[in-house]
Amino acid sequence: MKRPAVILVRPQMGENIGAVARAMSNFGLSELRLAAPRDGWPNPKALEMAAGAENIINSAQVFPDFTAAAADLQLLYATTARPRDMEKKVLPPQAAMQSLAAETKAGMRAGIVFGPERSGLENEEIIRCDTLITIATAPENWSLNIAQSAVIIGYEWFRSQQDEKAVARDFPDIAPKEEWDGMFSQLENYLDECEYFRVEHKKPIMWQNLRNMLQRSAMSGQELRTFRGMLRSLWEKNSPKT
Amino acid sequence: MKRPAVILVRPQMGENIGAVARAMSNFGLSELRLAAPRDGWPNPKALEMAAGAENIINSAQVFPDFTAAAADLQLLYATTARPRDMEKKVLPPQAAMQSLAAETKAGMRAGIVFGPERSGLENEEIIRCDTLITIATAPENWSLNIAQSAVIIGYEWFRSQQDEKAVARDFPDIAPKEEWDGMFSQLENYLDECEYFRVEHKKPIMWQNLRNMLQRSAMSGQELRTFRGMLRSLWEKNSPKT
Repeated sequence: MKRPAVILVRPQMGENIGAVARAMSNFGLSELRLAAPRDGWPNPKALEMAAGAENIINSAQVFPDFTAAAADLQLLYATTARPRDMEKKVLPPQAAMQSLAAETKAGMRAGIVFGPERSGLENEEIIRCDTLITIATAPENWSLNIAQSAVIIGYEWFRSQQDEKAVARDFPDIAPKEEWDGMFSQLENYLDECEYFRVEHKKPIMWQNLRNMLQRSAMSGQELRTFRGMLRSLWEKNSPKT
Repeated sequence: MKRPAVILVRPQMGENIGAVARAMSNFGLSELRLAAPRDGWPNPKALEMAAGAENIINSAQVFPDFTAAAADLQLLYATTARPRDMEKKVLPPQAAMQSLAAETKAGMRAGIVFGPERSGLENEEIIRCDTLITIATAPENWSLNIAQSAVIIGYEWFRSQQDEKAVARDFPDIAPKEEWDGMFSQLENYLDECEYFRVEHKKPIMWQNLRNMLQRSAMSGQELRTFRGMLRSLWEKNSPKT
């Protein structure tokens, strides 16, 4: 079984990176990926806060952006505070980690994603994710910092591993994100060329909806190739066969 | 119903008092009691860390010791890291907070107790408590700080207060089968016409796979119309616009 990676997208404070690493080691997670950390890497403040998790900090991998950091992963769970108006599955921490436990047990490569401290993840980044995790809080203070969220997610991950009932179900072997990117860029080219979006300012939301919708199908690499073949056939129908 | 008080026994760092107050306000707890805080009271560092929980810090009550701080309470739950060789009930956070929820609902006055950062509670203090809460961690790093523990306890307290229905599951309103049929028959026509299936005897399995794959996306009626529009655009790209 491969344990999920934790991806911090554009993390700002080194202290927070350290606190996340600490929570990871408290709860049995070990692979930390950093997408474009604001203050560069290594960051001595991260090490200071990482009580007992120095090895996680020292072996963290750095990527230029979220796309690169998630390229080889099949499933992404993102923690979000703000409700997003998006057709995505939203789960509370326990259900999310139980689901992730079953998926990793079935061999899937997954990531748990945390956005930058102030702004959170961009919509573009949310679209790449498959499931959103929302931590319910009291209405009078709903703001959890990244270290608090990581503790709760870690706690539920660890609990899910104690739970013998986390049975491996039969999951499709979802294609890694870079293969989805390939398909989406092919489809986007076609749709641009045939002026599907018509009004330019409506394109972002239309394209977002299309991607969310198709991503839910959880296609395998083989299925993605089949789908791309289908798109190409539709596209080339009037072109000379090669 | 009276919500449980949180008692910090001989807390050392103001920052930690602030972090506990923050977690309390995130999860619907409001009464903070301090037994002999090391650096006196008020403590500006507590206020700095209390994002959104300033009222909890400002209304915290100070007592000379744990005995005084717990005098009016009927039930005490203490978080402990080290296993204690004591005949006490020991519960994990979820079970402890469910039990506490039932007790406070029945009108009991209860407290959740955290010991000093380095040493933890004295045996004498543990004896005063009724139930011990132990947070399971990975063996490689079992040390949780007081802020992390407070987040987990707060999270479980808040969950214990929620209805079963609070589980946020946000699924699209899947289109009825006849709408799927409409889309599939449109797509099949296109694919036949552009000879996508090539070898006739392979069509049944290829078509079955395509349908299974697309159906997994669980599209709503609106999404299905969007998808059909997209297919039509791809198909008609070389046809004169009408």
